Amino acid sequence: MSKRFMFEKPLGMRDTFPAIYETKRNIKEKIHHTLETWGYRYIETPTLEFYETVGAASATLDQQLFKLLDQQGHTLVLRPDMTAPIARVAVSKLLKEQIPLRLAYSANVYRAQQNEGGRPAEFEQAGIELIGDPTISADAEAIALMVSVLKNAGLKEFQISVGHIGFVEKLFTQILGTASRAEELGRFLYEKNFVGYRSHVNSLGLSSIDKERLLKFLKMRGTDEILEEAYSLIENDQGKKALKEIEELWKLLEEYGVEKYVKLDLSLVSHMSYYTGILFEVYTGNVGAPIGNGGRYDSLLGKFGRTTAATGFGLRLDYMIEAAGERQMPPTIHCILFSAEHRKKAYELAAQKRTEGENVLVQDISGVSDVDSFTRSFKDVTFLVGAGRKEDDRYE
Amino acid sequence: MSKRFMFEKPLGMRDTFPAIYETKRNIKEKIHHTLETWGYRYIETPTLEFYETVGAASATLDQQLFKLLDQQGHTLVLRPDMTAPIARVAVSKLLKEQIPLRLAYSANVYRAQQNEGGRPAEFEQAGIELIGDPTISADAEAIALMVSVLKNAGLKEFQISVGHIGFVEKLFTQILGTASRAEELGRFLYEKNFVGYRSHVNSLGLSSIDKERLLKFLKMRGTDEILEEAYSLIENDQGKKALKEIEELWKLLEEYGVEKYVKLDLSLVSHMSYYTGILFEVYTGNVGAPIGNGGRYDSLLGKFGRTTAATGFGLRLDYMIEAAGERQMPPTIHCILFSAEHRKKAYELAAQKRTEGENVLVQDISGVSDVDSFTRSFKDVTFLVGAGRKEDDRYE
Repeated sequence: MSKRFMFEKPLGMRDTFPAIYETKRNIKEKIHHTLETWGYRYIETPTLEFYETVGAASATLDQQLFKLLDQQGHTLVLRPDMTAPIARVAVSKLLKEQIPLRLAYSANVYRAQQNEGGRPAEFEQAGIELIGDPTISADAEAIALMVSVLKNAGLKEFQISVGHIGFVEKLFTQILGTASRAEELGRFLYEKNFVGYRSHVNSLGLSSIDKERLLKFLKMRGTDEILEEAYSLIENDQGKKALKEIEELWKLLEEYGVEKYVKLDLSLVSHMSYYTGILFEVYTGNVGAPIGNGGRYDSLLGKFGRTTAATGFGLRLDYMIEAAGERQMPPTIHCILFSAEHRKKAYELAAQKRTEGENVLVQDISGVSDVDSFTRSFKDVTFLVGAGRKEDDRYE
Repeated sequence: MSKRFMFEKPLGMRDTFPAIYETKRNIKEKIHHTLETWGYRYIETPTLEFYETVGAASATLDQQLFKLLDQQGHTLVLRPDMTAPIARVAVSKLLKEQIPLRLAYSANVYRAQQNEGGRPAEFEQAGIELIGDPTISADAEAIALMVSVLKNAGLKEFQISVGHIGFVEKLFTQILGTASRAEELGRFLYEKNFVGYRSHVNSLGLSSIDKERLLKFLKMRGTDEILEEAYSLIENDQGKKALKEIEELWKLLEEYGVEKYVKLDLSLVSHMSYYTGILFEVYTGNVGAPIGNGGRYDSLLGKFGRTTAATGFGLRLDYMIEAAGERQMPPTIHCILFSAEHRKKAYELAAQKRTEGENVLVQDISGVSDVDSFTRSFKDVTFLVGAGRKEDDRYE
């Protein structure tokens, strides 16, 4: 093995250096504060879960799962999301205590990557799960809370797209008849390939009214003003019920005073296959992918043995750092360099300055081979060396 | 797959519930504050590393490593410790900027377990690495900083055992001649099996003076007063040099004013095979294993391509929580239950109370099937339902 290889990291794996570390820590603290003031409680789940349980329940593609065998021969996965693990914990423990249940998390999740230079294979997500509340109030709370988190984290411009998976499904079934035809068309929406969507619709040999519905549907974006036209597209009751939920949601978002951050987008669908109702994504101008997403998933907890309504959202911390733009300034460090006979004085000076709130590094000068290079990064340097105390001119 | 299996977690994997989560978070913040005031900077490394690099450099037994294959066919490991990954980062990037280098971390590490009911397979460690400083000042700083961390984290009683791996090795080689015989005897020390050690020494057919040395050696525990007798045990220069380092260390610990937390223990050895000099472990009365350990490892960075002196320590957060005893009290949550026509008022009341610093949960009463059970865990409950506002008698 060459020396060079010793430096390398697996595909998609990254180191986080101090400036980004502190920036992330700062954002995490603001998120923690916001979620706590809204009555959410943090939990942590293990990095490794059984493939058959959490792996299967999560919505991540099989080839994106990191899998391994444990010593008992079970297949394990590195958790690809936090929603499925929290569903497991909620069903097995917490739903005995309180329903609805409000839980929060901030944790790394793992998605195996195929190509060098691509996306990170490990990234931190912060989010919430609101479990056991089937009302639109719960959907509205998830969105309003996400707005509050983003604002408190220092993001100024962001937009939340809100759709309803039930509406898309019912519209497609109404017009296309079979689930497989609906799925085929839906794939263009997942990929946000609207050119492909249109040409596929044109190729289907539909009646002109149905074709028009499927094309108009793409333009159903905006405030609640789009809903009137949306009602004209859908004929079945469940599709209308989905629109009624969106309509009610909009009213609630107005009551929260957050509707200015929201745009309805009835063609919104998600890679997360477990969503069953209202779903949403959040974008900022300077990041090329949604920085977070969420939605209702009323069927997932059933897989863990107890059918329970649930909604939630997750935000990607790497994208939030990018979106917030500002880096946390590294804290100033005062450096005291000492020679042996001044050591005790150096320790005492450092201890005193630390109690005054300064960050103080103490360094034996005999442990430094290049003093100029070493001291370059400190704003203040005090030399306690040789005869007397010499203060660097950078020291105030 | 049975429903019951859906609840299960892999061997040694644990969920962390809110009270412990907040207790751990609180301890982590105190550690972060202390390490920052001593001039250390936090970094983060990936969960997955190459088996051939970090896996091989770490001191963890092969059967304790979680291994997996990536899609390119490389063997990866879940990091078993943070010292080897930080050595990788330091050599590849950070040592170009500053030497000595002071880095900190707080991260989960992974050790596969063999038996149910045993130790956790994933646990968080917080610690530091001081890289590029070969002086005893650096060893003393690691120990004094660990004392400061433990005190600031609220631990009142703890004891640090300090030894020197060089002294043990030289004493054993002097008396036993071969490395394999030295290793055989050393194993009893690793296991802290002192009965086995004594009977092994008696079985070796040594001269009475060498036998006495090996038996006396076990009692070399206490303050620097033990050193005089220790010098009488060792004949070779490198062994004496190890004692001189311990002697100098003790003086420095006195100058730091932390010697009361320290007991020299010349028979101390470690499972961490990369230690090359002074090493230490910290115990508290109520935890049955060391809550942390550290030492000098001057050869590890060489494996990553640049031989550089280094020392550091790591503390186990689960044991620190156990040692600190106190649990973080969960924050009080004020619950506002509303019916539809009071919704807006509920949102406004909650927003106002949150700006005043209260934690406020807002719940649509139509989303609650058992109001008594739901409200039980809140200290304050405000009902905005039906005609007028009803306040629970628990509300101040």
